[in-house]
Amino acid sequence: MRRALSLAERGRGRTAPNPIVGALVVRDGRVVGEGWHRAVGRDHAEIEALRRAGRLARGATMVVTLEPCTHWGRTPPCAEALIEAGIARCVVAQRDPDPRVNGRGLRRLRAAGVKVELGVLAAEARAQLAGYLRSRRLGEARVTWKVAATLDGRITDARGRSRWITGPAARADAHRLRAASDAIVVGAGTARADDPRLTVRGIANAPSPLRVVVDSGLRLPLRLKLFSGALASGTVVACTTRAPRSRERALAARGVKVWRVAAERGRVSVGALVRRFAREGRHEVLLEGGAALGSAFLRAGLVQRIVLYTAPLVLGDGLAWCAGLNRPLAAATRGRVHSLTRVGDDAKLVLDLED
Amino acid sequence: MRRALSLAERGRGRTAPNPIVGALVVRDGRVVGEGWHRAVGRDHAEIEALRRAGRLARGATMVVTLEPCTHWGRTPPCAEALIEAGIARCVVAQRDPDPRVNGRGLRRLRAAGVKVELGVLAAEARAQLAGYLRSRRLGEARVTWKVAATLDGRITDARGRSRWITGPAARADAHRLRAASDAIVVGAGTARADDPRLTVRGIANAPSPLRVVVDSGLRLPLRLKLFSGALASGTVVACTTRAPRSRERALAARGVKVWRVAAERGRVSVGALVRRFAREGRHEVLLEGGAALGSAFLRAGLVQRIVLYTAPLVLGDGLAWCAGLNRPLAAATRGRVHSLTRVGDDAKLVLDLED
Repeated sequence: MRRALSLAERGRGRTAPNPIVGALVVRDGRVVGEGWHRAVGRDHAEIEALRRAGRLARGATMVVTLEPCTHWGRTPPCAEALIEAGIARCVVAQRDPDPRVNGRGLRRLRAAGVKVELGVLAAEARAQLAGYLRSRRLGEARVTWKVAATLDGRITDARGRSRWITGPAARADAHRLRAASDAIVVGAGTARADDPRLTVRGIANAPSPLRVVVDSGLRLPLRLKLFSGALASGTVVACTTRAPRSRERALAARGVKVWRVAAERGRVSVGALVRRFAREGRHEVLLEGGAALGSAFLRAGLVQRIVLYTAPLVLGDGLAWCAGLNRPLAAATRGRVHSLTRVGDDAKLVLDLED
Repeated sequence: MRRALSLAERGRGRTAPNPIVGALVVRDGRVVGEGWHRAVGRDHAEIEALRRAGRLARGATMVVTLEPCTHWGRTPPCAEALIEAGIARCVVAQRDPDPRVNGRGLRRLRAAGVKVELGVLAAEARAQLAGYLRSRRLGEARVTWKVAATLDGRITDARGRSRWITGPAARADAHRLRAASDAIVVGAGTARADDPRLTVRGIANAPSPLRVVVDSGLRLPLRLKLFSGALASGTVVACTTRAPRSRERALAARGVKVWRVAAERGRVSVGALVRRFAREGRHEVLLEGGAALGSAFLRAGLVQRIVLYTAPLVLGDGLAWCAGLNRPLAAATRGRVHSLTRVGDDAKLVLDLED
């Protein structure tokens, strides 16, 4: 199963709206076929592993990270394929909470006489599929907030400058975070101030996550890089239902998609936004700022993980990365340090927030 | 020499104004005597090691972390003791920059026919004696700023509460920092808001560093714990030369010492203060806040190390631990991550600042 989990990772960032999945066909203790879900529309992991195994699949064991599906989507149901291939035993890490599956895959296999074992390395599989599982169970995408700050928690100096606080190694690591996400989201302030591209750079054959800018009133200028050239077609602007139609048309003319999302006090509701992400199959969302948008997500309890890159710098002024939560110490947002590492000259702290 | 450095550490926090020192007498590859400077007024490390070695010292090698002294202080000069004991060879890690020594010890030994070797594990010895060396060379104490903050750099919530941001393990670790210091310093705001005792707790037989409050105008109320009972006699208040004499008398009546220090814009000059610390033989100073005092030290370039305990909490409001430096990003105070560790549920980052 460890091998299957590791195979699954190869699909990270490429499979939305599908989950990443890895599978092995094992016969007499030997792997005779491996597969992973490479991208949406491509074969599921089980199918790829069966094809590699060929006739050796008959009587063999399928080891797969997620329950095989039973429904026709872009590809035929996997459970049937396992049965047809003559798989005798199926070891599964995690049940698929997709309402079209949700135990049906396991029942179908059992009904066909396949011996099913569920829950092997379940915790590891749950961690690997955290976004997908959350999205399918709660209808809300999983949000990771990425912050690059000074030791004293500043993301800009007093004049608003932020390039660069962290070093090249931390910035490269942040590109890996992007590549592992289904969507990247920034606020209008960040889009305006930094004019970012939100692409993945420096990683060969990296997937390109959807780029989402939250601009409640569609006020951002069209000259931004995100709305220009080839970038426009992979960019979404999230606005409220009341944002001007004329602006939407101007964006659409460039290939930019517009998501109209419910408002809360006149601005895009972050709750409605994470539900929209889930519906769009963008389960793993990387929030890249700024402070206002991130703090709004945090205030709503909609951040599951914070990745904080800390530079060995003290500014003593400038924008704090989090503001306006207005909570007393006893009610502070609390998490658990998942990891603490050095990345070049910087420190990287990953905090998993309590639900 | 590693053994000698490790012996020296046993004196940490107990020897001010003297440096910590460790010494071994080695004969035929075997240690025949060990010593370390246990506390001011007690024997120097070399003398203790010689006493343990007894007659075996004749013709043996002395391994010592710091150059043996040549002057009469509270105890007789060590160099003479080595010569009298018949030490044939002396291995030294670091020259003593004290103007009363500063190479004289080595010269005296050589003149008496002792073979002298200088610079063994010199870098380690320099790190161990960083405060003492800085103090003797520059006339300024070495300052370590200890901060306990949330992930977003807050040291209080919006209502000023700070107890407790970090967990028990980090607080215990901070007590070890105190025990390793020659003095602890806080600002008047912290003294007033937290009414701290600034003692070392939870460590058996721990030394008690000098407690120093910076209160430029001597305005702090006498009811503070630092000015009461047994604590008063180990407490110093640093004020400007213009602070009222009547307040000084009231403090002195309780046993509190008052240091009158040069002012800068009406407040205690932090530069004058670190020079006073050095003159008082308090070479290693632990600055425990608050934000205003710490930021003043940092602004003046008088912080050599920051120890930041980060709790897995996000507050999003409250006091930032550093403010008012007003530097552009390109001129931010820059350091080097010395270490990054977990302490209980918290993270601990030690940053060495560039001089």
